[in-house]
Amino acid sequence: MNFKFSFLIVAFSLSLITSSCVTVQVTDNTVIGSEFAINETKPKNIILLIGDGMGLSQVSAAIYYKDGKPNFERFSTVGLSKTSSSSDLVTDSAAGATVFSAGVKTYNGAIGVDRDTIAVPTIVEQLSGDGYSTGIVATSSIQHATPASFFAHVKHRRMYEEITEFAPNSGVDFFAGGGLKFFNDRKDKRNLLDSMKARGYTVITDKLPTKNVPGKELILLDQDGMPKMSEGRGDFLPKATELALAKLSQNEKGFFLMVEGSQIDWGGHSNDADYLIEELLDFDKTIGVALDFAKKNGETLVIVTADHETGGFTLSTDGGNYNKIKPTFSTKGHSGTMVPVFAEGPGASLFNGIYESNEIYFKMMEALGRQIDSL
Amino acid sequence: MNFKFSFLIVAFSLSLITSSCVTVQVTDNTVIGSEFAINETKPKNIILLIGDGMGLSQVSAAIYYKDGKPNFERFSTVGLSKTSSSSDLVTDSAAGATVFSAGVKTYNGAIGVDRDTIAVPTIVEQLSGDGYSTGIVATSSIQHATPASFFAHVKHRRMYEEITEFAPNSGVDFFAGGGLKFFNDRKDKRNLLDSMKARGYTVITDKLPTKNVPGKELILLDQDGMPKMSEGRGDFLPKATELALAKLSQNEKGFFLMVEGSQIDWGGHSNDADYLIEELLDFDKTIGVALDFAKKNGETLVIVTADHETGGFTLSTDGGNYNKIKPTFSTKGHSGTMVPVFAEGPGASLFNGIYESNEIYFKMMEALGRQIDSL
Repeated sequence: MNFKFSFLIVAFSLSLITSSCVTVQVTDNTVIGSEFAINETKPKNIILLIGDGMGLSQVSAAIYYKDGKPNFERFSTVGLSKTSSSSDLVTDSAAGATVFSAGVKTYNGAIGVDRDTIAVPTIVEQLSGDGYSTGIVATSSIQHATPASFFAHVKHRRMYEEITEFAPNSGVDFFAGGGLKFFNDRKDKRNLLDSMKARGYTVITDKLPTKNVPGKELILLDQDGMPKMSEGRGDFLPKATELALAKLSQNEKGFFLMVEGSQIDWGGHSNDADYLIEELLDFDKTIGVALDFAKKNGETLVIVTADHETGGFTLSTDGGNYNKIKPTFSTKGHSGTMVPVFAEGPGASLFNGIYESNEIYFKMMEALGRQIDSL
Repeated sequence: MNFKFSFLIVAFSLSLITSSCVTVQVTDNTVIGSEFAINETKPKNIILLIGDGMGLSQVSAAIYYKDGKPNFERFSTVGLSKTSSSSDLVTDSAAGATVFSAGVKTYNGAIGVDRDTIAVPTIVEQLSGDGYSTGIVATSSIQHATPASFFAHVKHRRMYEEITEFAPNSGVDFFAGGGLKFFNDRKDKRNLLDSMKARGYTVITDKLPTKNVPGKELILLDQDGMPKMSEGRGDFLPKATELALAKLSQNEKGFFLMVEGSQIDWGGHSNDADYLIEELLDFDKTIGVALDFAKKNGETLVIVTADHETGGFTLSTDGGNYNKIKPTFSTKGHSGTMVPVFAEGPGASLFNGIYESNEIYFKMMEALGRQIDSL
């Protein structure tokens, strides 16, 4: 059997053109087996948690390596996301995040721009413009592909300093992650921390505060990416998520928070199972923070998904002993398998089924009751 | 980080003991995005299609290697199944099928018996006893682990001749697959085809008929497993499924049909991507037959799932070219990742979420409105 890839690529490109907009209506939000008491048909808030590079085997690792029940298992709604980008069968994290932030399938490397490098409005910009509070938390730098795609528009992901220039006017109320050097150690010698302060941000660079300060917060705890869990990152991700929720939930209008478990992907690229699993369990703990908040709040939709799978990670057996799991990798890069989507809270049922990754943007907008007619 | 497997195994065994019975109620069957017009809250018929060894990367291969839209994508409800057996973190196909047929987590190798080797009633026996029609179709022999677990009770999967002895009184109305030699070339010199005929079966061993014959049918088209697709099996699986549906749907009470794409697993064990993908696409075509029937019929629940993943199969890239998929394997055996569940039709919404594999049995029984209080 010879597989004709050139045909596949053409067919795939055509299918992307025709699969643009979600027309589904929220007709019912009854979700069987939910631990939530859901009375709302429409969420006020959305928490989107992205496990970068987190395929189903990565999620499944939580079953075997976590003491106690993984938070992944608390979700009553499951979907599957088709991750290809407009340029490639296998997406990178830039195109893979721009689908969530702006609803467009774009080329690998694109940050908040479409396949013609035209800027597309992000969910953060759209909601922020309508009075919602917004937040971005990551264990990478905040200029890394996934978080950057929610507030910046550049033609290539490596343009970290240009990405940073979008931060002062981003409207984002709460940033937490790494990436300090792109603000204050730049080729153009500007110190963008001053620009952030001028826009009302309190800049925190020493350690994660235990309480929010008034106004907007920019928390940058490393020059570039945050340390690995094994290098002492501690509970930064769950605690920063708690802090973000405490700040954003003060807004009566509602909020959108994006949290990335960035380094699940890095463990995959390194083919380092211990690294991957420690990052995955940290992300699972953070999911618990989001679900606990949402359960108490009652008006919050929580979505967990991935941009793509990294590493060709599997949970094989050790020498054929079916009682010993031995994680394996088959690539240093990404793979093309679908990734799981988990949803809980009002609007969760929209995320059931199989769909293109960019539909997640439209489903979020639909859940919020916003009319999105075309791209 | 050292992972303590012995602790994991104990904790896992304990969790199995406590996760026995589904108490969820069918409160609503509205499924957003379904192509079906579902007015029934309860199905009359169930078609369970098992892709042996079919993990999410196997399913995803259909996106890249099928001309046109895979039938997998027609499902509006998705779930995830945790596959471990009572004896091992990674299940085999015997324990992996007995969870579906009888609702018990049992030891690897067990066919229709619990962990104490005690026979447990199967869904085929229970429904057949209540007047439903039943059918079993596979591309293996009908005595192979998966189909055998629906009508036989033996302590080990390799006891093919003993498994065959359960066929005459199984109540199954339609068998199609391989396995002739276990009927008529036995160590005990008995010819069990005579026993089948005495129980009213028409025995067909030359080719798949184009129309049903009256009464019960035993169609055995190979001595053991059926040929591979690449060796000329042709459209046996979709056609046998059509034939089964034509027969079983004559029963006003309803029916249960199990169809196995047996050789997806064998392609995985062989680490032969072409073999795996050809078998997968044949299975996808068969899913189309089931969905087309169900859509027209309106009272049929279709469930597609797997017993486990085989091969540690991934959809990697070719030399880092993200526009070329290169399938890879990481084991000759099974892996421990969760497997997807797809459901469509009345009762489908029960299959959303994450659950132990044996809950699929209880969900089927619940969908049919049957009270199952304990194991």
